[in-house]
Amino acid sequence: MTGEWVRRGGTPAAPSKGRLRPLGLKEVTLRPGFWHQRQQVNADKSLDHIEHWLTASGWLGNFDHAVNRQGREFSDSEIYKYLEALAWANDPALEDRFQAVVAKVAAAQDPDGYLNTNFGRPGQAPRYSDLEWGHELYCFGHLIQAGVARARAHGHDELVRVAIRAADHVCDIFGPGGIEAVCGHAEIEPALAELYRVTGNRRYLEQARLFIERRGHQVLGDIEFGRAYFQDDVPIRDATSLRGHAVRATYLASGAVDVAVETGDDELLDAVAGQWAHAVARRTYLTGGMGSRHQDEAFGEDWMLSPDRSYSETCAGVGSIMLAWRLLLARGESRYADLIERTLFNVIAASPADDGQRFFYTNTLHQRVPGAEPPAGQLVPRAASSLRAPWFAVSCCPTNLARTFASLAGYLATRDDEGLQIHQYTAASIDTGDIALDVDTEYPADGRVTVRIVRAPQTPFTLTLRIPHWADGATLDGQPVAPGTVRVRRRFTAGESVTLDLAVRPRLTFPDSRIDGVRGTAAVERGPVVYCLESVDLADVDFESVHLDPASALSDRDGAVVVSGRAVTPADGVWPYRQRDHSTGAAVEIPLHPYHRWARRGPSTMRVWIPTTD
Amino acid sequence: MTGEWVRRGGTPAAPSKGRLRPLGLKEVTLRPGFWHQRQQVNADKSLDHIEHWLTASGWLGNFDHAVNRQGREFSDSEIYKYLEALAWANDPALEDRFQAVVAKVAAAQDPDGYLNTNFGRPGQAPRYSDLEWGHELYCFGHLIQAGVARARAHGHDELVRVAIRAADHVCDIFGPGGIEAVCGHAEIEPALAELYRVTGNRRYLEQARLFIERRGHQVLGDIEFGRAYFQDDVPIRDATSLRGHAVRATYLASGAVDVAVETGDDELLDAVAGQWAHAVARRTYLTGGMGSRHQDEAFGEDWMLSPDRSYSETCAGVGSIMLAWRLLLARGESRYADLIERTLFNVIAASPADDGQRFFYTNTLHQRVPGAEPPAGQLVPRAASSLRAPWFAVSCCPTNLARTFASLAGYLATRDDEGLQIHQYTAASIDTGDIALDVDTEYPADGRVTVRIVRAPQTPFTLTLRIPHWADGATLDGQPVAPGTVRVRRRFTAGESVTLDLAVRPRLTFPDSRIDGVRGTAAVERGPVVYCLESVDLADVDFESVHLDPASALSDRDGAVVVSGRAVTPADGVWPYRQRDHSTGAAVEIPLHPYHRWARRGPSTMRVWIPTTD
Repeated sequence: MTGEWVRRGGTPAAPSKGRLRPLGLKEVTLRPGFWHQRQQVNADKSLDHIEHWLTASGWLGNFDHAVNRQGREFSDSEIYKYLEALAWANDPALEDRFQAVVAKVAAAQDPDGYLNTNFGRPGQAPRYSDLEWGHELYCFGHLIQAGVARARAHGHDELVRVAIRAADHVCDIFGPGGIEAVCGHAEIEPALAELYRVTGNRRYLEQARLFIERRGHQVLGDIEFGRAYFQDDVPIRDATSLRGHAVRATYLASGAVDVAVETGDDELLDAVAGQWAHAVARRTYLTGGMGSRHQDEAFGEDWMLSPDRSYSETCAGVGSIMLAWRLLLARGESRYADLIERTLFNVIAASPADDGQRFFYTNTLHQRVPGAEPPAGQLVPRAASSLRAPWFAVSCCPTNLARTFASLAGYLATRDDEGLQIHQYTAASIDTGDIALDVDTEYPADGRVTVRIVRAPQTPFTLTLRIPHWADGATLDGQPVAPGTVRVRRRFTAGESVTLDLAVRPRLTFPDSRIDGVRGTAAVERGPVVYCLESVDLADVDFESVHLDPASALSDRDGAVVVSGRAVTPADGVWPYRQRDHSTGAAVEIPLHPYHRWARRGPSTMRVWIPTTD
Repeated sequence: MTGEWVRRGGTPAAPSKGRLRPLGLKEVTLRPGFWHQRQQVNADKSLDHIEHWLTASGWLGNFDHAVNRQGREFSDSEIYKYLEALAWANDPALEDRFQAVVAKVAAAQDPDGYLNTNFGRPGQAPRYSDLEWGHELYCFGHLIQAGVARARAHGHDELVRVAIRAADHVCDIFGPGGIEAVCGHAEIEPALAELYRVTGNRRYLEQARLFIERRGHQVLGDIEFGRAYFQDDVPIRDATSLRGHAVRATYLASGAVDVAVETGDDELLDAVAGQWAHAVARRTYLTGGMGSRHQDEAFGEDWMLSPDRSYSETCAGVGSIMLAWRLLLARGESRYADLIERTLFNVIAASPADDGQRFFYTNTLHQRVPGAEPPAGQLVPRAASSLRAPWFAVSCCPTNLARTFASLAGYLATRDDEGLQIHQYTAASIDTGDIALDVDTEYPADGRVTVRIVRAPQTPFTLTLRIPHWADGATLDGQPVAPGTVRVRRRFTAGESVTLDLAVRPRLTFPDSRIDGVRGTAAVERGPVVYCLESVDLADVDFESVHLDPASALSDRDGAVVVSGRAVTPADGVWPYRQRDHSTGAAVEIPLHPYHRWARRGPSTMRVWIPTTD
């Protein structure tokens, strides 16, 4: 099976069962457009930048036993995510660099397969002495994911052997009769399930299943944040929502879907799908961002989605895409692709600077004070900086983005026995052998998507196109189509086209009245893109005064969406709670730009949700 | 000067200059009423409870060099705050217990005056090796405050000598030519200024001044939370608002007022008063609570006052009262007493359980999920528990409340050359020698306050009464009086009365439109008391559905305030952001109770700010 994947370029998740089958990275080629440009910046700029920082920070040097260890307890994982990115990029020009890093990693592996630069060496804490916070299995998970990527994209070589030795070690130590615990940060679970898919060795799947089932029975110690932080509060089959640390939650749920699909455990799959649906309906930002709480980078309770201090960690966006993609493959429902689209355009696209060398760690929906640009070349201790920073003390997001951009083509389309499904719209060429087609579009700037058949079988097949949930008024070849999916089944011939018009135009969106943090506001969206207001666009108007008229017409103007409203500033007082005052204010025009472009023109205040006039 | 204070019972802050002069704890006696009851519970129940936990936790045992140290780096300070509470209580029945604890503390002091159970012993980090987080000077500060309390309330004895040795040590080490730094947690500053007031030794005042001036010049290392966390970002003369960790901020500002007053530094006093005014106008909850952020227990930016995850630490309430009281003494303006009143009724009164043995650490304004009652006798690792807990891993609040309740009488009234000022209303007897009077009132249940003259001089004096800022419609002896203060100057005679009617009745309060977190809501207040809605009072109505009609009449009913409104529940969807829907709902009656009584009838959801109907 791996040889087949190597031919097709590999793919980030390869279930053996499910409604839809992923395509390989050689089967989908991004062409110039929104995502191609970002993938190129990742390849041309971010990978170099990351290796520079991994070296300068000493985190790569940690693999040399002789040095004093640098960085946090999970820094090994950044090297592994970087290797995963290189593996997906699978660029011969990067091969020497890849092998040099692999050699360092391989040399640090103990004879029994253990590998972690933070435990077990002289002067360090013993192996597995801090499962709550030590991140050892988490690091193994990312090592294994890198090995899986390499095996699928390139074939079995040294990194894959290192990963397999690590996985065997984990099964030896944590398998039946071994340590009856889990890691404080899920990640080993999807990694082992994926390694099973690569190797066919069921021991890895069984170990993943064991970790999934063990968690939730208070096998870890209590911590200040509570056991929900690492999902050890409630067994996964009993939980009703994603909860706790958002990255941990989405990684764990991803592993659970992998295990459920491979073992045919529909009860488990239903449980995770239900938790996802609950979290999307009540615990997710308009941007698709997940995680409301700074303190513990965690989901809030239902409706706790204040833009103030919204966290929406970039890595939680990555985890959310991992999870929704797996659910999409398993169940084929367009809502999973809807959330992936939203997250891609409003979290993943928002994080990196245009130069691919600075990143948002968090993606707030409301910036009250303009941030200060981090000094060039300086590691930033604070994740929640309001401008993109080159590197962080906890620098999980740059490498997570790198592996996501490098494998992005894998998320565009799928196959099933009936035909081919397109989930995300961007200029691309898709060639799956019997079916080949080109997608032409300026999306999301424009809603027209033309799918041109390049090669088609002699027999009919079904071309399925996603109609995003916001796309009221969409048409396919001029015929109205409703949100969800549209299926075109016929015998296609090379050269013919299908044209989808997604009615991309600005619209006002209002929040559920139970989301207290945004009561009395509206947001502007345009297609899949969330817009925001930045103070740099309001030279003569007090930013805090802007109120949008919910009856206003919305218009496109020079890349902005313009709405009308009023500037209402209450009188300043000694105490901000008083009798009701009905203020009117001067009429203002409010120009909004795509949220993913915010803070690219220097320090600014910003808000996604704009107060509305009465 | 100390001997005079001993005669008068001591007082929590005793500036040598300023508009108003504090009274001693023997000059003001609480009589049965709202605060007397709470002071009695503190004396009868909380002090025992605290000593039990200090012993059980091992924190008191830390003073014995032989044991393995228990608790966090600042646990010594809890013993000192307990000693301060005992000193203010000044109860002969507690004297043996007080002396036993003092003996332990004194025995642990090194010959050079250093005293901290967490540093400098074999196997511990060296003294002053972690000024950012070590809390050594913070602990000294509370030791000195305990010594000051003892000196003023009882006279110079062993604890005072220990405190003076500690202060001399601090001056030796951190004075001119010594370590040019400050402590990561302010507290030594007001303590040294107060010790100067007790001893007359200017060295302590000068050292307090030095600490105040040094801070803000980046003398501490950068930390994840940023240097604003410990107010080392900007010199205090240049800052525009209270900021960073709310307890640190209010303690530092208190010390700055002490130094400014004693050195005649009006520029410094103006700076702190301006920061206070800014924080009160833009960074303070309706309850008077300060600190919006869980992550770093810190003030948010302007208007960042979401009830979701509002923090409002009990200790920040204590710090706010310390600061406002000092500003009131310095400047005599009623707005400082207004905030003290608000904080007393809605933070300080909210924290302890009726039995005085469980406490809120944080005081949220919105509880979305009913909390779980902490197991009896169990230390709670999480400060933000939604039910009162007996003790916390960080247990600063119980001892801070204890010293506040024990010295509460000190905050009721003051003298100046013209006469006597009453700032807080509760049943009490005040006897300052030439002037003695009784205050009779059921406040805050009822707004009538009768001041009966018991003894008066032959010459006229001015009786000044505060009219709270909310008290529209107040009358004095039937004549309308406006919020602020009312001054009655005449020759009073024993037996005559002055009657103030404060028009305590329920009212709706609306937030400044710039506070995003509460847009489209209103709160109910009654006199100085903030009300809240608890789910236990809404048996048949979905808590999240309740909307208040802003035109509703408010009525008192059985201790509750009842308003009318509607139960509006949006349809559940897969995504909570959509086109506008205009929902109506069934009429409901909404009963609200005093916020300080919330969660006393078992687990409940709760909100202070109620969404309003359109």
